[in-house]
Amino acid sequence: MIDCGESAQLQFRKCKLKFSRLNHIFISHLHGDHCFGLPGLISSLNLLGRTAELHIHAPHELEGLLTPWLNFFCHQMTFEVIFHPFDTKQPQLIYEDRSLTVTTIPLKHRMPSCGFLFAEKQRPAHIIREMIDRYNIPLYEINRIKNGADYQTPDGECIPNAQLTIPANPIRRYAYCSDTLPLASVAEQVKGVNLLFHEATFADDGEGRARETYHTTARQAAKLAKDAGVKKLLIGHFSARYDDEQVLLTEAKSIFEHTQLAREINFYSVD
Amino acid sequence: MIDCGESAQLQFRKCKLKFSRLNHIFISHLHGDHCFGLPGLISSLNLLGRTAELHIHAPHELEGLLTPWLNFFCHQMTFEVIFHPFDTKQPQLIYEDRSLTVTTIPLKHRMPSCGFLFAEKQRPAHIIREMIDRYNIPLYEINRIKNGADYQTPDGECIPNAQLTIPANPIRRYAYCSDTLPLASVAEQVKGVNLLFHEATFADDGEGRARETYHTTARQAAKLAKDAGVKKLLIGHFSARYDDEQVLLTEAKSIFEHTQLAREINFYSVD
Repeated sequence: MIDCGESAQLQFRKCKLKFSRLNHIFISHLHGDHCFGLPGLISSLNLLGRTAELHIHAPHELEGLLTPWLNFFCHQMTFEVIFHPFDTKQPQLIYEDRSLTVTTIPLKHRMPSCGFLFAEKQRPAHIIREMIDRYNIPLYEINRIKNGADYQTPDGECIPNAQLTIPANPIRRYAYCSDTLPLASVAEQVKGVNLLFHEATFADDGEGRARETYHTTARQAAKLAKDAGVKKLLIGHFSARYDDEQVLLTEAKSIFEHTQLAREINFYSVD
Repeated sequence: MIDCGESAQLQFRKCKLKFSRLNHIFISHLHGDHCFGLPGLISSLNLLGRTAELHIHAPHELEGLLTPWLNFFCHQMTFEVIFHPFDTKQPQLIYEDRSLTVTTIPLKHRMPSCGFLFAEKQRPAHIIREMIDRYNIPLYEINRIKNGADYQTPDGECIPNAQLTIPANPIRRYAYCSDTLPLASVAEQVKGVNLLFHEATFADDGEGRARETYHTTARQAAKLAKDAGVKKLLIGHFSARYDDEQVLLTEAKSIFEHTQLAREINFYSVD
């Protein structure tokens, strides 16, 4: 989960996602609309009898703020909440498993703020089934071949790797950037990602206000997406002043065609 | 506002109530579903530029829990939040203005918990317009007569008050009781109220569970309403186990006919 505003647990349920699959929460910055849902979410997980650790990656002040609440409101915790504070000043690898890394993206807001870059790890190539049969490749060679080795047959023939495998799917990357001024350093860090979520709090008419409040306009987000050569842009975090968010979409699309509005209870593919 | 669970500010907006008319919040007890909406609500009031004081009546621990959050998340507060801790052990007058009093109703839950009794004050009688004209009653006598005095005419005739006035509307009282075991002391304190909200977390099938978790069944709430001779009962705080809350209503109505289910975003008259 990335950020956890008030009611996040309700939205989570509405999306029919499973709480049991939620293990890591990434909090971009400590404004209420990005973290006030944590006490309720954690209480609910506790009522559900969760036992797995819950990891919260956030600016360091969160632990001191949340811990007294958890001690008071969830004193018979069935699981452990583990805080992982991160530095908001430079990109930092904050999560890694066998298929994914998460790196912070330093942002510029009224308080320390980071986005997050989710990158799949390159997977081994797929071995071609028929080649295994044709050359009678023993099982113990398979992993070596998947990872790039050629195959030496018992009679000394060398079958080049390229004949034996097809490349793995290209890795996918998703970047989340909110709240922030538009930054060239972000464009640099998210270059070519499959999907960029970027805040677009204001339309052109709010450009001054965006600058004052350290936010981004839809047009600026689109410009950033274009500079970064991302595949798709998803804009969100709209100011309540826009009853109709189409104006934001129109302005963004005038710069970067592959833009969508982030709507609640919706799924967007990273492909 | 009575209690302020997560998303209360959203529900408040949906009801089209005005934030500017919200001046007092009464928190029954410090479980998350009754107070986790406070940080978000207060932050929103701050963003709206509220200047009027906000009064929070709650068990005393709330101030220590909420203050660090307000200091961190709302450090440029445009208004003051004033905490009024109350003792949960005995009925206590915690609010009074010229038309209303609020008194705590001690409850029995897993932690200190109080309900609230809202009682209108008796208003002065209405003076009968034609009597003013007939006896030429001077302006300075009006308030005395409204408050029960007879009128002495210049020629010494005494006009009894009953001829000059009609009684004010009877006062209305509303009692809110959640979360709690059913208590005879509550029935005593809410005798004859116009509207009683009482929690009914479980149906008959959850009677054991209700006792274990210090909650009330729909039937017990109805029994209490009947014993107290209230005019109407509103049951709520239903366990999520009941997809269809009709079972709760049916069981309650079998004991006390004038029962309704408390539904979200709905208005119920105290008359």
